[in-house]
Formats: sequence, C-alpha cells, structure tokens
Amino acid sequence: MSSKVRVGLLGLGTVGRSVFDTLSANHELISARAGADVEVAAVAVKSLDHDWGIDRSLLTDDALGLASDPSIDVVVEVMGGENPAGDCIRASLSRGASAVSANKELIAKQIASLVSLAQENGADFRFEAAVGGGIPILQPLQHQLGSNRFIELKGILNGTTNHILTEMRTRGISFDEALDEAQDLGYAEADPTADVDGWDALYKITILSSLITGQQVSIDSASLNGIRGIALAEIEAAEAKGERLKLIASAQFGDAPEISVSVQSLPHEHPLAAISGATNALWIQADPLGEVTLSGPGAGGGPTAAAVVGDIVEAVRCRNMGTVSPPWPISS
Amino acid sequence: MSSKVRVGLLGLGTVGRSVFDTLSANHELISARAGADVEVAAVAVKSLDHDWGIDRSLLTDDALGLASDPSIDVVVEVMGGENPAGDCIRASLSRGASAVSANKELIAKQIASLVSLAQENGADFRFEAAVGGGIPILQPLQHQLGSNRFIELKGILNGTTNHILTEMRTRGISFDEALDEAQDLGYAEADPTADVDGWDALYKITILSSLITGQQVSIDSASLNGIRGIALAEIEAAEAKGERLKLIASAQFGDAPEISVSVQSLPHEHPLAAISGATNALWIQADPLGEVTLSGPGAGGGPTAAAVVGDIVEAVRCRNMGTVSPPWPISS
Repeated sequence: MSSKVRVGLLGLGTVGRSVFDTLSANHELISARAGADVEVAAVAVKSLDHDWGIDRSLLTDDALGLASDPSIDVVVEVMGGENPAGDCIRASLSRGASAVSANKELIAKQIASLVSLAQENGADFRFEAAVGGGIPILQPLQHQLGSNRFIELKGILNGTTNHILTEMRTRGISFDEALDEAQDLGYAEADPTADVDGWDALYKITILSSLITGQQVSIDSASLNGIRGIALAEIEAAEAKGERLKLIASAQFGDAPEISVSVQSLPHEHPLAAISGATNALWIQADPLGEVTLSGPGAGGGPTAAAVVGDIVEAVRCRNMGTVSPPWPISS
Repeated sequence: MSSKVRVGLLGLGTVGRSVFDTLSANHELISARAGADVEVAAVAVKSLDHDWGIDRSLLTDDALGLASDPSIDVVVEVMGGENPAGDCIRASLSRGASAVSANKELIAKQIASLVSLAQENGADFRFEAAVGGGIPILQPLQHQLGSNRFIELKGILNGTTNHILTEMRTRGISFDEALDEAQDLGYAEADPTADVDGWDALYKITILSSLITGQQVSIDSASLNGIRGIALAEIEAAEAKGERLKLIASAQFGDAPEISVSVQSLPHEHPLAAISGATNALWIQADPLGEVTLSGPGAGGGPTAAAVVGDIVEAVRCRNMGTVSPPWPISS
C-alpha cells in the first residue's frame, strides 16, 4: 500500500471529533480496507484561539481554503448548516476532489445541483450519514432503486423527538418535563425547533424522496407538524386503543410524491411502533421488494462517524480504480 | 439510452421466474435507471419438454453454453446448488462478463475463489440476494467494513424455522405439527434438512463472516444445531422467564471468528425477539457504529428478485462507466 490519501476535515464538533478519532483509532484497518494510507492532513475549525486538543499544526480557520487546496484528496464536511458548508462542497467538487458530507439541511435543499456538479466534474459525492446517522439507508435504498417501484416510506428519523415521546409514554410525564430533561441530558438543543417542530426529519425524508423520484423535491411542498405541546392524554388515549403515537416522516409515491412530517398513530404491530428512545428507523414498502425495516442509532458521534468514514473508504476505493460511484441523476 | 444489455438467466424456479417478471414488469423504470435497455436474451431451464409459459425461442437447456456465450453481458445464476452453478459462474467471470447470483451454498463454500476470479478478469460479481433475500445486507455491511471493527452478528436468517417457532409459540402446537403445516403451505421443503437443521442459516452467516474477515471461513469450523425436535415446553419455559427462543446464526469476531447456528434464548427486549413469522433480520454490533438491525423478507420470489435485479442494474451502471464495483479481497 504505497499511496497516501489526504483528508481535509471541515468541522470539529461532535461528529467531526468522532470522525477524527475513528480515522486515528482504526487507522490500520481503514487503510488496509481503503487500499491506501488515509490520513487527516488538516482540520478546519471556527477559531484557532480554542484548545481543540489535537496537533495545532493541523488546524486552520479557513474552511473554504482547505476545501480548495489541491493537495487534499477527500473533503469531509461536518460543519452543518447551508453556508459556508455549501460553498466548501462546491469548491471541492469543482476541482474533482471527493466530498463526503453529513449535512442534511444543505443536501435536502440542494441535492440536485450538488449531484450535478459532482457529475460534471467526475467527482465522487457521498452523504450516507445525512439521513440515517449510523443506519445504512442511502446505499441500500439506491441499490433497490434499480429494480423497484417505491410505494411508501415511513421513518422515525429524529431521535430527540422519539426519546421525548418514549419518556412521556413510559413515565407519564408532560411534554415540557420531557423536553427539559432532554435538554439537560444534551439530547435536545437549547433551541429545540429543528427537532421538535420536525425540520430535522423533514430534511431527511426530502433527501430520500429526491433520490427516489430523481427530482429535487422541495421542502416547501411538504406538510410539517412536529410534536411541540403534545399532550400526555393523547399518547395515553392511543395506547388504550392498542396504538402508539410516533413522529413519522412519510413519503408516498403516486403521480407526485407526498411528503409529510406529523404525529401518526401506529398499531402496536407496526415495525416502527416498537422503536423506542433515541433509536431511528426507516420502513420501506416497494414492489417487488415488499416491506423492509432498517433501524439503529440515527445520530451521535460514533455511529455518524462510522457512516462518514465508510463513505471516505468507498471514495478512496473508487479513486484507486480511477473511477467514481455511478451517480443517480437528480434533475432540478 | 442507446445501448442494449443482454441478460442470460440461469434457472426459472421461484426466484428465476420473479426475476424474469420483474425485468418485464418494471422494464422501463429499470432501463432508465440502468442507463441501458436491459433485456432477457435467453433463459436456461432444466428441460425443454416442459411448458414454461414464456417465449420458447428464449429457452435453452444448456446453462453452461449460455454462461459462456460472448453475446451475453450479464449472467444471472438462480439455479442454486454447488454444481453446475459454480461452473456457469466461473465461465461468466472468466470471460469478463458480469455475474449475479443468489446462491448461498455455492458462495458460502467458494467465495474466496469466485471473488478472486472476478478480480483477475475485471469482472463484476454480485450476490446481494444470497444472504438476506430482499433485505439489504451485503451492501450496507460492505460500506461499514471500511470504518468499523465488527464485534458480533446475530441473525434470524431462515424464514422457515422462524415461522415454525412462531407458530409453536403463538398456537401451542408441537414441532411436528408446525413442520407438517409449513410443508403443506409450501414454506418448508419435503426434505426440510436445509432449513430445520440449520444449513441454510449457516451458509448465510459464513458468507457474512468471510466478507468481514477477508478470509474464506470454512463451514466446517462452525457449530451447527438446528431446531429439529424442539419441545413446546422449552419455548414456554423461556417465555415464562421473559425470553424467546430463536434459531440464531451468530458470528463473534475475536482473534478468529466463531460461527454458530443454534437455538438461543433472547430477552424480549432484544431487537431480534420481536421478529416473527417468515421475516428475517440481522443484528450488527460494531465499533464505532453501535447496534443496527436490518429486517424484512428473507426469501420469496419478489423480494429476492428485487435484490437480484438491483445487482443487475448496479452492474450495468458500472459497465456504462467502463468499471466494476471495487472488490473486497478475500483470501482463501
């Protein structure tokens, strides 16, 4: 294994830190499987004044400069948010570098243009972690795209809200109590809008729907209702009927896809009813596939890093062969 | 879409028929996604005397001849058994053609040599359907191979035995009654050895273990115990303790992998405990991934065809780019 692959890591939050640690802890295994020595060459952070606990010579506060650096083979964007993350990914793809991202908001809103840019430049663009965190979702779904008519997806795609609903149900506490606790535990942000009002789940179901339809699905076309202020009595009334309330991100594929995020009452026998706590899951119905359920840790540093590093290794394996993974075209 | 891709289908049993039907029913969608017109050019059957209900001009009884035919781009082996299936796949790969197989026994026993042969000839060899039927398992597992240390797999990888155990538990019937019924319903073969004694599950866990370790794992190294003759009283005693008996194919990855198929008593909270009837599931534990569960239809014509045709489309998408999927080397 002679070749070296230089990774530029953009962001050193929870996921960035776990990606850095995984690349270091599993370095030998990763390099053997990638067929190249995979090393983090530089890390872009918000401020150089903070002690990040890693070799200072690796640090830069110029994310766009790092993404544009021709010596960087694979750019890993784990900053989040639409900008400057989007500019950095575009800079990477434009020069033909591989880009890996876990950024659900950016990809939900701009998947068609980013995938096109990758294609035009023969660049590899992967984002397995953006939807399921550690749960393998995009690769299996893209494999099944080749043979199936997709009928419906239903997902528990946000761990914070599923945790809150689980705590309310099992301990009989109110929404406000459960949210306060989740914030104290670090499961929910100080501003819980993205989780509680359903935006996070909406971004994820939008990405899946765009891939399935081959069209940029607009988040504005979705019906969006989160769990804010849900009453314990509603949860208990559903249980009394043998049903369970879940925040479900749903897509139905008729003539046009219908996307929604809303609280649904599922019979206890539904595969998603038993998914509790911070676990996420996606239930897929397609023809001739039938029904498949994928479940696991939808967030968290380690699981998300597993998917991000998996993408890095796949990109390197393709690079070694002078190719990229065949893209699924998505029109805007 | 100008190019034509000629598929040679070896076998027209339940799976072969479903592959044929899926390629026909979803032809437009499949060809659009493959970026080429995918057509079944010929079908190898056991006997030309039987009325197979498809255009007779497509039929041949010379499977090896079809696999060797240079006009066939993708050979799809759904005959099952070690031979002549193995010879046909080797004939395909040797001439650089893509091969897709759903043959768990053959691949379990010969994965290292088949993968090497594909690599030597720059041929694409895919077998997603061989382990999980319709459940996406191999692609997600190979993606996670790049980043994780695998700790353990536990799978319900045989639908017939899970169906029998479920019927015994929910209806209080004996093993013999449940087996008789499964045979009447066509879930179990007249000779149920492959299912009931655990061979089917063993082949599948062996394939997974070979991929994870990068070494040909021998089925002879496994500990194998099926469900034949299991007593209803054992099932009931487990339930009384809050546990559930399942036929579990397991692999633990220490210095050397330990493979077994055996009845295990799982706590009701375990993700595999709730998998009932003919549904299959694989539970994966890896670091930093954590725990992931993939579940769905592990057998049956439609689901298996979804995976087989997914492989065909992926192979064609790579062909269009003049490449193959980067192989994971497996040493013998």
